[in-house]
Amino acid sequence: LSPAPSLLHPQIAKEVSKLLEMKAQLGADEGKHKFVLKTPKGTRDFGPKEMAVRERAFKAIISCFKRHGAEVIDTPVFELKETLTGKYGEDSKLIYDLKDQGGELLSLRYDLTVPFARYLAMNKITNIKRYHIAKVYRRDNPAMTRGRYREFYQCDFDIAGQFDPMIPDAECLKIVHEILSDLQLGDFVIKVNDRRILDGMFAVCGVPDSKFRTICSSVDKLDKVPWEEVRSEMVGEKGLSPEAADHIGEYVQLHGGLDLIEQLLQDPKLSQNKLAKEGLGDMKLLFEYLTLFGITGKISFDLSLARGLDYYTGVIFEAVLLQQEKEHVEEPVSIGSVAGGGRYDGLVGMFDPKGRKVPCVGVSIGIERIFSILEQRLEASEEKIRTTETQVLVASAQKKLLEERLKLISELWDAGIKAEMLYKKNPKLLNQLQYCEDTGIPLVAIVGEQELKDGVVKLRIVATREEVNVRRESLVEEIRIRTSQC
Amino acid sequence: LSPAPSLLHPQIAKEVSKLLEMKAQLGADEGKHKFVLKTPKGTRDFGPKEMAVRERAFKAIISCFKRHGAEVIDTPVFELKETLTGKYGEDSKLIYDLKDQGGELLSLRYDLTVPFARYLAMNKITNIKRYHIAKVYRRDNPAMTRGRYREFYQCDFDIAGQFDPMIPDAECLKIVHEILSDLQLGDFVIKVNDRRILDGMFAVCGVPDSKFRTICSSVDKLDKVPWEEVRSEMVGEKGLSPEAADHIGEYVQLHGGLDLIEQLLQDPKLSQNKLAKEGLGDMKLLFEYLTLFGITGKISFDLSLARGLDYYTGVIFEAVLLQQEKEHVEEPVSIGSVAGGGRYDGLVGMFDPKGRKVPCVGVSIGIERIFSILEQRLEASEEKIRTTETQVLVASAQKKLLEERLKLISELWDAGIKAEMLYKKNPKLLNQLQYCEDTGIPLVAIVGEQELKDGVVKLRIVATREEVNVRRESLVEEIRIRTSQC
Repeated sequence: LSPAPSLLHPQIAKEVSKLLEMKAQLGADEGKHKFVLKTPKGTRDFGPKEMAVRERAFKAIISCFKRHGAEVIDTPVFELKETLTGKYGEDSKLIYDLKDQGGELLSLRYDLTVPFARYLAMNKITNIKRYHIAKVYRRDNPAMTRGRYREFYQCDFDIAGQFDPMIPDAECLKIVHEILSDLQLGDFVIKVNDRRILDGMFAVCGVPDSKFRTICSSVDKLDKVPWEEVRSEMVGEKGLSPEAADHIGEYVQLHGGLDLIEQLLQDPKLSQNKLAKEGLGDMKLLFEYLTLFGITGKISFDLSLARGLDYYTGVIFEAVLLQQEKEHVEEPVSIGSVAGGGRYDGLVGMFDPKGRKVPCVGVSIGIERIFSILEQRLEASEEKIRTTETQVLVASAQKKLLEERLKLISELWDAGIKAEMLYKKNPKLLNQLQYCEDTGIPLVAIVGEQELKDGVVKLRIVATREEVNVRRESLVEEIRIRTSQC
Repeated sequence: LSPAPSLLHPQIAKEVSKLLEMKAQLGADEGKHKFVLKTPKGTRDFGPKEMAVRERAFKAIISCFKRHGAEVIDTPVFELKETLTGKYGEDSKLIYDLKDQGGELLSLRYDLTVPFARYLAMNKITNIKRYHIAKVYRRDNPAMTRGRYREFYQCDFDIAGQFDPMIPDAECLKIVHEILSDLQLGDFVIKVNDRRILDGMFAVCGVPDSKFRTICSSVDKLDKVPWEEVRSEMVGEKGLSPEAADHIGEYVQLHGGLDLIEQLLQDPKLSQNKLAKEGLGDMKLLFEYLTLFGITGKISFDLSLARGLDYYTGVIFEAVLLQQEKEHVEEPVSIGSVAGGGRYDGLVGMFDPKGRKVPCVGVSIGIERIFSILEQRLEASEEKIRTTETQVLVASAQKKLLEERLKLISELWDAGIKAEMLYKKNPKLLNQLQYCEDTGIPLVAIVGEQELKDGVVKLRIVATREEVNVRRESLVEEIRIRTSQC
């Protein structure tokens, strides 16, 4: 037997306890296999409190999606590997593959957009407005405190179909605006750009066609690193001419509203480029619609916004939360993207045997970062969040009343009342009341010998400690009335 | 160019079109890669209609779980491979592994019970009542028409903690009873047995200890194959003595209620076995509690119920739907299990470094088979199921009113009204009304030149074709009143 560490000299005690811990970790004393008790890297459990926060956020998002008339679909968590191939550019290396156990080669979905396009092509659907809330998987470097996980939720809303320009696109931005306002996450800005404007800009700056995608992914880093670093990547690693890079540098520092669009439509070079002109024309239309929606105050046309995914073809956007201004910081600092999306008119066609296109535009809410913010806020506040909806605890003050409690709780359940009881034959009244305090149950229905004789139940209101005798046949109604605000 | 098949002799035309189809499948004409457009084997998409059915079923189940005071948790879709190892007996071969891409070895969860036990041990929780609804994965032979998939939902409710005997167990059976009654799936029976009674029975029948588990999994087949076949597996494949097998055969044909329990408590052999006696004593207590709940009519103590999973230690149960009686069939036939569960007092201890046990009992609702039944029923009925909740379509009767529609719909969204519009600059009124008919939108808010001048909106009730002019400032309230039943 080892001596209790507390009886030894502190330093020795420390060493002994270290050694004992190592021994325990090695599992030497029992010869038992020791499990590593953890969730996989980059994943987490949601306990009841986290679920309560999660359900609040989902409720706000789903009610917005439904307000805009969306249907809902769901797809499998894995897809044929080839379904995902060639859709994500440089990010493909982050896809989780399943082990080849015989049969089809499968991968976990990387987003909800590619499965949606596969679903449309497979079912020959050319017209749908749907949302989809589900987990997606990326073998990325997790940064869990900032809400970056390997398993995380996406909340997607997409409009598929051939429509008049920019009407669905404007609705997607309206949705982002509604959700971020509703969740009260603080100030935000929605950056907007267009792949055609980017491509046109690259062309007039002298970027060779073959380098469009890779230069685009350099531009995409501008929200994290300064221009000088991006420029040296373009010139050094990617072999772009310094002149072209500098030319790009002038454009990507521009951001504004309708005035900037008008200015660029007059730009001697950009206005000569067909793609850029189309993109700018549509951007102008988009801003007109956003003005009618009354949300241009939070929208910024930003030429540095690129977004990495290969499949975008038109408008792209990204919403970022702005740090609350502290001590007169000049400009609010971005603390990260919480929503993004854009138009992808070619993706469905990649799945159609005849290449038939279905134009699509959609938005994805990055809910994990939102969870993090809501969780931090809840912790900072004194609010005690309930994790059950129980209306009444069925209790007894005396012994030998288990049968009576079982009979009463069964009546309550059958009447639709949310009820609990302690799983003890003879629980103490104090423990039963304490359970209500701990879990926020507002009412206690107490059965006792006398009450049974009188045909009543004693109803105790936990908050006020008030007690009233209620006739048994009126109990359900009384509980309903007293908890109607729940 | 190939000649159009219709111009050729029918037989030749048929052959030509076959060849063209083969050519298309080979992707010869375009050099493009042809995708196989499907979901992985044993999985399916849920379209909007299937989702509507799914959400109805979930609603009934979740409201029952909440009525019984459950919290909710969620865990990752994959676990460390070693977390799942040694928990599922012969079924372990059905686990999906992820590819080793560097880092941890992972597997998709096979059920929600093992992740729950891992969660309890990891967080040192000794007391919780929770539900968990999520997809699980089994590389089984799919039989999709009968609702057997490789990716499928489980709806689990479990009670963990050290409590007085059979109170939580009885509640689990009450929950199954409530859910199956609520969903109106037709007649059902909940079979109940106990692992200790099975093990005691094996012992008194002369089954060697080492053969308990494998003989148990033979007994488990009795709901699908006749006793003679099970007997020959026991004797032929598993090397059990014919006498022992025959002895088991006598027991496993017994089923009944309290009377059978009393009879077996007097059985000269069983009553001498400590395990069996314990099990029968608890079964008696369970039936007393179920009598207080008023549900013994649907409960059958059935000695042939075994359940395959390794982790059960006490009460086990399984609910099966009974075929509706047709033309005086003598006894209703089982058409499949829709819920199951039991007590597993050792599982959490397998994860605890010190082997500390947390007794658990739980139930899992097999929702996929329930979806199948509800879907078939919906198809058979004439009921038209709505897949959106849109209250009003914002429409116009004349051209050039896109801006006015956008302004009005934005007002409605901001007031919380569920509203849609067609994404056309100048849609025809007929198309707009047709869209309402197709999707079940009950109201149309029509803007026109005259209405704009008068400060009103024409509100059309789709069902009655009635039209009323509503002052613009009263529109939101009017829509709310007219759709309050939605």
